[in-house]
Amino acid sequence: MSSVDGVGTKLKIACALGKHDTIGIDLVNHCVNDILTCGAEPLFFLDYIAMGKLVPEQVEAIAQGLAQACREVGCALIGGETAEMPGLYTGEDYDLVGFIIGVVEKERIIIGKTIVVGDTIIGLPSSGLHTNGYSLVRKLFGETQSVLNTYYPELGRTLGEELLEPHHCYYHQLKPLLPVIKGLAHITGGGLIDNVPRVLPQGVAAQFHSQAWTILPIFQLIQQRGNVDRNEMYRVFNMGVGMVLICSPDDVNQLTKALPEAKVIGEVVKQVGKARVIIQE
Amino acid sequence: MSSVDGVGTKLKIACALGKHDTIGIDLVNHCVNDILTCGAEPLFFLDYIAMGKLVPEQVEAIAQGLAQACREVGCALIGGETAEMPGLYTGEDYDLVGFIIGVVEKERIIIGKTIVVGDTIIGLPSSGLHTNGYSLVRKLFGETQSVLNTYYPELGRTLGEELLEPHHCYYHQLKPLLPVIKGLAHITGGGLIDNVPRVLPQGVAAQFHSQAWTILPIFQLIQQRGNVDRNEMYRVFNMGVGMVLICSPDDVNQLTKALPEAKVIGEVVKQVGKARVIIQE
Repeated sequence: MSSVDGVGTKLKIACALGKHDTIGIDLVNHCVNDILTCGAEPLFFLDYIAMGKLVPEQVEAIAQGLAQACREVGCALIGGETAEMPGLYTGEDYDLVGFIIGVVEKERIIIGKTIVVGDTIIGLPSSGLHTNGYSLVRKLFGETQSVLNTYYPELGRTLGEELLEPHHCYYHQLKPLLPVIKGLAHITGGGLIDNVPRVLPQGVAAQFHSQAWTILPIFQLIQQRGNVDRNEMYRVFNMGVGMVLICSPDDVNQLTKALPEAKVIGEVVKQVGKARVIIQE
Repeated sequence: MSSVDGVGTKLKIACALGKHDTIGIDLVNHCVNDILTCGAEPLFFLDYIAMGKLVPEQVEAIAQGLAQACREVGCALIGGETAEMPGLYTGEDYDLVGFIIGVVEKERIIIGKTIVVGDTIIGLPSSGLHTNGYSLVRKLFGETQSVLNTYYPELGRTLGEELLEPHHCYYHQLKPLLPVIKGLAHITGGGLIDNVPRVLPQGVAAQFHSQAWTILPIFQLIQQRGNVDRNEMYRVFNMGVGMVLICSPDDVNQLTKALPEAKVIGEVVKQVGKARVIIQE
């Protein structure tokens, strides 16, 4: 099981704030969550950092975050490449890419094929934007120091601090529960709308009740600021749900007991028309 | 066995010429050669393409090159990520990263530990710059259309054509010969000077005779154009040697017979002082 990913333009926020010690955590956790959706546990990780001109302190801070997050999931950070590419990256810009390899026994791969109408959908909270939607946020707010250092009472911190909140890792919470989980969707770019159908078998759809979970204040702030259409919000952001679990109604108690922060947020229904995901107000 | 790498600012030449169907070949061949130095054969490959704004034709051309090169070495192109990062990449700029996994039996790993004084050093020709030294070349020549489309009689083609020549892959040539090879060095950034010591055991050095191989005309052109110091040339470029093999003198005949383009270019000597690599005129 393998995956390759970046952290999108969350990098630009890290650069604007000159804070590079958590972006590596974002990258590793994003990758770990990605392969976790198949039931895989992470084995090893490689990174690629490209900059216009190498800034050793910056590389060190990034590497520190990578190492910390790898350590936390017992994944070996076995190598990487640091590339200096003048003319491609300007100023202190850089790109950061992660490659992860994990393993899962063949008979334990989670692919969602046993999901049936009537199954329960459980949501686990995200810690914020995770690593998606930053291009839209930057378009709406800009990325100047003054914008990012503005304190918002509803966030309880500055916008920059909120936006740099690391991507939550679901590995330790979910690992012991994988045997009772029929399907897992990591809510990244494309939101619930694009990510959940990947795990659904043909003929069924996922029906969500948006009242059932907390839509984090940052998403309300973004929606208001940009007057963003509700549909677009659900296509760009995780809206507070970082990981979706699908299980038999019989296993709901076991799961919500083991995961106190989890909420039942929907159910699997028969597909009617084209929609694979329905989000009720 | 795994490796992660990019193709450096060769990308900028591809962009300047709007020719994207060979840069994927460069990336795969670079990665395949990298793990070949340990005796590994490629198993699977993942790519990461990041652009400011996705240009489908460009992505398709890049992917075509990746697929072709993977097919040629029997490596599965198992996935990848295409990221849109506005504000990080300008215009048609992009970055391209490859991640390769290979395998080698434990007792067949090539690490150079049996190399002794008196062993022979064989060089295999490069096809050009491969994927290193482009930042210096761009600094010296610029990267305008008119510069890149200039025909050079000594190259027999335009500068742009020469610079985009794909990175040669040594896999098929070397695979059947790996059992008699004691050490392999892929000559990338850092040239002979930085790459060969990696495979040498303590106490020995590599002595090269630069008259023994053909320094490609492109390197002479670069050196003249920029009045680049000889030492710097050997630190930045492969200078015509893409892969270095170290073997027992007893196996030289077998290797040069199987590799008609190979040349004996040096020998392993006792290390005197700090120098691990000596390049004689």
